[in-house]
Amino acid sequence: PQDDMRAERARASFASRNVAEALNGGKEVLEKRSRMVAQLEKLPWGQKSQRAFLSREQEYVQALRAAMGIWQLMQSGQLSIEDGLEMRNLLAFPGGLELHIGMFIPTILSQGNDEQQKHWLPLAQSLKVIGTYAQTELGHGTFVRGLETTATYDAESQQFIVHSPALSSTKWWPGGLGKTSTHIILMARLFINQKDYGLHAFVMQIRDLSTHLPLAGITVGDIGPKFGYNGVDNGYLIFDHAPIPRNAMLMRYAKVTPEGKYVPPPPANAKASYATMVYVRATIVEDAGWYLARAATIAVRYNAVRRQTAASAGDKELQVLDYQNTSATLLPLVAVAYALIFMGKSAMGMYKQFEKGRDKGDFSMLPELHVILSGMKAVSTWTAADGIEQCRRGCGGHGFSALSGLPNLFASYVQNVTWEGDNNVLCLQTARHLLKSCETATAGKAVHGSAAYLTASQQEKSGKCKVASAMDWRVTDVLVMALRHRAARLAFEGHDLLHKRGKGTLHFEGPAWNGMTVHLIRMARAHSQLVLLMTFAEAVQQAQVEPTARKVLEQLVALHGITTLLTELGDFLIDGHVTPSQARTLQEQQHELLVELRPEAVALVDGFGFEDYQLNSCLGRSDGNVYNALLQAAKSSPLNQTEEGPAWHSVLKSWLDPATRQEARSKL
Amino acid sequence: PQDDMRAERARASFASRNVAEALNGGKEVLEKRSRMVAQLEKLPWGQKSQRAFLSREQEYVQALRAAMGIWQLMQSGQLSIEDGLEMRNLLAFPGGLELHIGMFIPTILSQGNDEQQKHWLPLAQSLKVIGTYAQTELGHGTFVRGLETTATYDAESQQFIVHSPALSSTKWWPGGLGKTSTHIILMARLFINQKDYGLHAFVMQIRDLSTHLPLAGITVGDIGPKFGYNGVDNGYLIFDHAPIPRNAMLMRYAKVTPEGKYVPPPPANAKASYATMVYVRATIVEDAGWYLARAATIAVRYNAVRRQTAASAGDKELQVLDYQNTSATLLPLVAVAYALIFMGKSAMGMYKQFEKGRDKGDFSMLPELHVILSGMKAVSTWTAADGIEQCRRGCGGHGFSALSGLPNLFASYVQNVTWEGDNNVLCLQTARHLLKSCETATAGKAVHGSAAYLTASQQEKSGKCKVASAMDWRVTDVLVMALRHRAARLAFEGHDLLHKRGKGTLHFEGPAWNGMTVHLIRMARAHSQLVLLMTFAEAVQQAQVEPTARKVLEQLVALHGITTLLTELGDFLIDGHVTPSQARTLQEQQHELLVELRPEAVALVDGFGFEDYQLNSCLGRSDGNVYNALLQAAKSSPLNQTEEGPAWHSVLKSWLDPATRQEARSKL
Ligand SMILES: Cc1cc2nc3c(=O)[nH]c(=O)nc-3n(C[C@H](O)[C@H](O)[C@H](O)COP(=O)(O)OP(=O)(O)OC[C@H]3O[C@@H](n4cnc5c(N)ncnc54)[C@H](O)[C@@H]3O)c2cc1C
Ligand SMILES: Cc1cc2nc3c(=O)[nH]c(=O)nc-3n(C[C@H](O)[C@H](O)[C@H](O)COP(=O)(O)OP(=O)(O)OC[C@H]3O[C@@H](n4cnc5c(N)ncnc54)[C@H](O)[C@@H]3O)c2cc1C
Repeated sequence: PQDDMRAERARASFASRNVAEALNGGKEVLEKRSRMVAQLEKLPWGQKSQRAFLSREQEYVQALRAAMGIWQLMQSGQLSIEDGLEMRNLLAFPGGLELHIGMFIPTILSQGNDEQQKHWLPLAQSLKVIGTYAQTELGHGTFVRGLETTATYDAESQQFIVHSPALSSTKWWPGGLGKTSTHIILMARLFINQKDYGLHAFVMQIRDLSTHLPLAGITVGDIGPKFGYNGVDNGYLIFDHAPIPRNAMLMRYAKVTPEGKYVPPPPANAKASYATMVYVRATIVEDAGWYLARAATIAVRYNAVRRQTAASAGDKELQVLDYQNTSATLLPLVAVAYALIFMGKSAMGMYKQFEKGRDKGDFSMLPELHVILSGMKAVSTWTAADGIEQCRRGCGGHGFSALSGLPNLFASYVQNVTWEGDNNVLCLQTARHLLKSCETATAGKAVHGSAAYLTASQQEKSGKCKVASAMDWRVTDVLVMALRHRAARLAFEGHDLLHKRGKGTLHFEGPAWNGMTVHLIRMARAHSQLVLLMTFAEAVQQAQVEPTARKVLEQLVALHGITTLLTELGDFLIDGHVTPSQARTLQEQQHELLVELRPEAVALVDGFGFEDYQLNSCLGRSDGNVYNALLQAAKSSPLNQTEEGPAWHSVLKSWLDPATRQEARSKL
Repeated sequence: PQDDMRAERARASFASRNVAEALNGGKEVLEKRSRMVAQLEKLPWGQKSQRAFLSREQEYVQALRAAMGIWQLMQSGQLSIEDGLEMRNLLAFPGGLELHIGMFIPTILSQGNDEQQKHWLPLAQSLKVIGTYAQTELGHGTFVRGLETTATYDAESQQFIVHSPALSSTKWWPGGLGKTSTHIILMARLFINQKDYGLHAFVMQIRDLSTHLPLAGITVGDIGPKFGYNGVDNGYLIFDHAPIPRNAMLMRYAKVTPEGKYVPPPPANAKASYATMVYVRATIVEDAGWYLARAATIAVRYNAVRRQTAASAGDKELQVLDYQNTSATLLPLVAVAYALIFMGKSAMGMYKQFEKGRDKGDFSMLPELHVILSGMKAVSTWTAADGIEQCRRGCGGHGFSALSGLPNLFASYVQNVTWEGDNNVLCLQTARHLLKSCETATAGKAVHGSAAYLTASQQEKSGKCKVASAMDWRVTDVLVMALRHRAARLAFEGHDLLHKRGKGTLHFEGPAWNGMTVHLIRMARAHSQLVLLMTFAEAVQQAQVEPTARKVLEQLVALHGITTLLTELGDFLIDGHVTPSQARTLQEQQHELLVELRPEAVALVDGFGFEDYQLNSCLGRSDGNVYNALLQAAKSSPLNQTEEGPAWHSVLKSWLDPATRQEARSKL
């Protein structure tokens, strides 16, 4: 297999290192990463070779130990915070601190007043307390306004009394809540004098710092194993009239005075928490590309060295990547992984730009960011999750082995379609905006931002695809126009349908809306697919790469666009934008691109720039030495600790061992 | 939630019990099942409540203990073999004996001569030996002819010397091989006097019966954890010149004489092993429906009691099943689960019919069975695997919890797309037959069997869909005609393409073939989808159910057909068989059917007839009491054994506990 891998690398027309540098932020970043990997491989908690064998309990403990290891390095000044984050990324071992880092500290930063920040941040940063974010309840995730936990102000004692009024109000899911966190950001319904002021955030201690036992009025535990992500102790939490002091409420915006007067938040509050959400979604989009890239790297490398089936006896067997079905599965996934990585960069860039404005009080970019990122979070995580599983299946039997790294990649990744807003629900948010834009356009006014194409709706509606010869499909504008046409058509159809169902008015909730969500979700997907292709094409034009590399990336853009059209072909044929004969040439072009890109396949995944340490996969090894890796890894499986295995004495012996059988019989 | 569940059951227009009886083989079967579940729930190894919490080692040992438990009941005469199989099915706990039951004993039965059967069967049936089936190697799965392990005959000692000539010839994957089996059916390349006679089957002992240690020349172990199916110890095996006696070769067909003369098998051998393969695939098709039905039952029940989002404050929140996107995901999966269950029954019926003929030497039904079941194995396992994951995602956050039962259902099921013939490879086999049928049809001769429609190809080619009003889409014939038209078009296009690529001849392998496998796989899928719909429609007409039930099942047939067309819409539009305006009414009809079927949803999944014990899901409970079930189950998670959790003393305390911190500091 190693020879095949070397041959693959020699075939490519461009230098993969050049692409890897462009994608990862330069030569220095990659070099530093290599050094960091070497460092991690020497640390006891940096080892990955036993990862696949850990029990849930071991995974939980070891993930926490590794996180503490990084924290220690940062605290002792051996690692900058930035490098600590990079190390966490390389380690890829989610554990009990994820929410402390990702939500507890950020929420105090954004919602706490100066005094609260001064109190909590040093404690949190030195891990004298560990926190999580407790919002979701057994009965409510999506519908945040339906949360039931109450925090009732008692002016006499100047305390809030936190209580779970029903089984369904049990807090459920918060990461690190089960056995790790001493504190939480509590999202609860604020009551003062029987009046409900809605959801507010509180910092609340739940465990004793010396014993780690739950405080009075607190029942807390782990919610049990999950599909993946098992190093994290997602937890449950029930309150029985648990008191917290008045200043536990995060009071940067809303306030409760000692006497129990409620001071409502200024509107900036809503915008600020919006901004946080938008930021998190931008990171999810970025991650989607990198996770899919991991799986694609493993699958492409393995399928380049896997040989299976010879036409005649004695012939060399074919590399599996040479079967059209394999390349037609994997190469479009490589393409969309690139697309998503560039999309993530673009989203982050937009967010950074927004941040600059925000600091001067300008929130005007926020709505547009919200529209793009809601739908894009959905499309990117669906694409990545489904793509990872396709990569896994593309590796045949060995892809089912945990040692391939692919099962865990899928099972741990796929939560992304659900958390931080279920994908369907997010698509509905984007759809709402698109419908409002249709309303604007219909009124003859201009729509701005990514949906600006709706302004020129009439032209779009009647537009016909201009492809005359097959090669025309490689022109980005042709592909973009087709996607734009479809997005506009679906948006206006949705608009008309909602109008009709609402008897002349647009209701963005209720039966009219709920009974047409299939179309609404499709609208949002179509819009997001358009933005993705446009962003990808533009990014490739601007990428800091050599001409040879750009040429191949341009082919990827075409492959991505063509594959999107083919996957949703009915949408383009149904109104005649694409004619049947154009559709046939579309299919042919895809096949030709697959042939042209075939020799670039391994270089393209090398271009993501992963270290073997990151992939931690017997099949994805850079050197192609896959069979040896599988065998060596299997040997260290815990089931192999004894030759007889764990069932010999307790179960098997009394059946199999002739002497024991005899004994057993003579006892009867 | 329990009230919602009761209300759902009251809404249905038919008696679910009536359907459950028809599907499961009658009232008595269901009653017996309930009794058996009651019995299992009292047995120590019959408990399922801790399943989600087991470590790999525990899962392996406990699955084996349960299998032995059933075996014991059968041996002591308390259980018939048939009931033992049903109990195994209810227990749903795959372990180290799967291959003993599924391949070791059957292969001895089909390939062993009388003497060998007399010797081995009693040993195997009383578990004095445990066997598996060792075919796949690290380097070869799909391409069986490429297997490398050798069995070289030594006439002097009258032994075969079994050897692994290369790393890639390491046996890899056999279930139960790792730590359980004492014997294997070995598939190895037979060599006599340096001549290679190809693959043959041998029975070989690999472990000492008294010590369970590997015999001389044998290296054996477990291949490590997998995506799912972790109770099974799939294993690896390396031979170092290990000797086995001459009569270890299964000699019902081929033989080697003591002097080393090879007696080739009669042609019936090939047909017999074909028949076994066909049988296994029929069981896979049947299982596909039942597995998807499990997931659909869980998801539909949960989404019927899950309420999320109220339009206005104070309104009752909507059942999630009332959002169109949810019903559009779940109801078509319910429909296709029914379709696959009926398809499985039909395939089994055909197989039984073939068996009758076979016993009189008539193998004529075999090719047709092979064509149908190769493609259908692929389509059914793809549909079930993807459908299970859709059900899981449809349950939001709680679907990610192992306590929902869905993650394990997916992870353990999905191997079915790979083993017993990778789905792509199987589709290519069906495609090959379809192309040959096209050749026959083109020559003006009649094609028989499921592809008979190719005979009348010319009519089919020009056929236009006759839908005039939307309701026409409910007519089975219209749907069947559309699917048949598409299948024929794709088959003839494939035929023409292969002709062209092969410059006038059809090569069923080699570059021309390998470079068009995407089209070939699609052809096979189209054919199988057609067979599935036809079989479903016919089975519903013949089902022993009350008229109210039949009416709803007929709606399911229409929903299934319409959904298939919508999913592959481009294929129907591209040659004008379906016009754009017909396609629009197709979409509308689907939505109307979803509305009509909505009140039947819970009754339809009740109609599968599962016991709660079988589903073992906190979300899928028949009574709808989901939140309580989640909380109670979580409490028994091993991570909750102590209040502090497993990381407190070893990891957390030194950071969090003020006293320990001080100590640590004073030590510096
Ligand atoms: C791994 C993981 C980690 C998590 N970590 C945390 C954490 O740290 N802190 C925390 O507070 N929470 C956490 N959560 C909870 C998470 O935020 C919720 O699971 C998520 O918001 C989805 O909500 P839900 O589970 O209520 O889904 P539901 O809303 O119940 O969704 C079920 C189904 O209904 C559909 N649906 C629901 N509402 C609508 C609608 N209005 N229109 C159309 N369709 C609808 C959805 O599309 C979905 O298919 C975590 C969840 C997971 C899986
Ligand atoms: C859970 C599990 C249990 C198993 N149990 C057993 C057992 O008990 N005994 C045993 O002997 N084996 C067992 N196996 C092995 C199993 O039979 C093989 O994994 C299976 O046959 C697929 O072969 P492969 O792994 O070599 O896939 P590969 O052939 O390597 O497939 C890799 C990819 O290449 C594609 N491909 C391969 N050849 C072609 C072609 N000619 N044309 C087009 N595409 C092609 C496939 O579609 C796939 O996408 C088991 C496997 C699993 C996953």
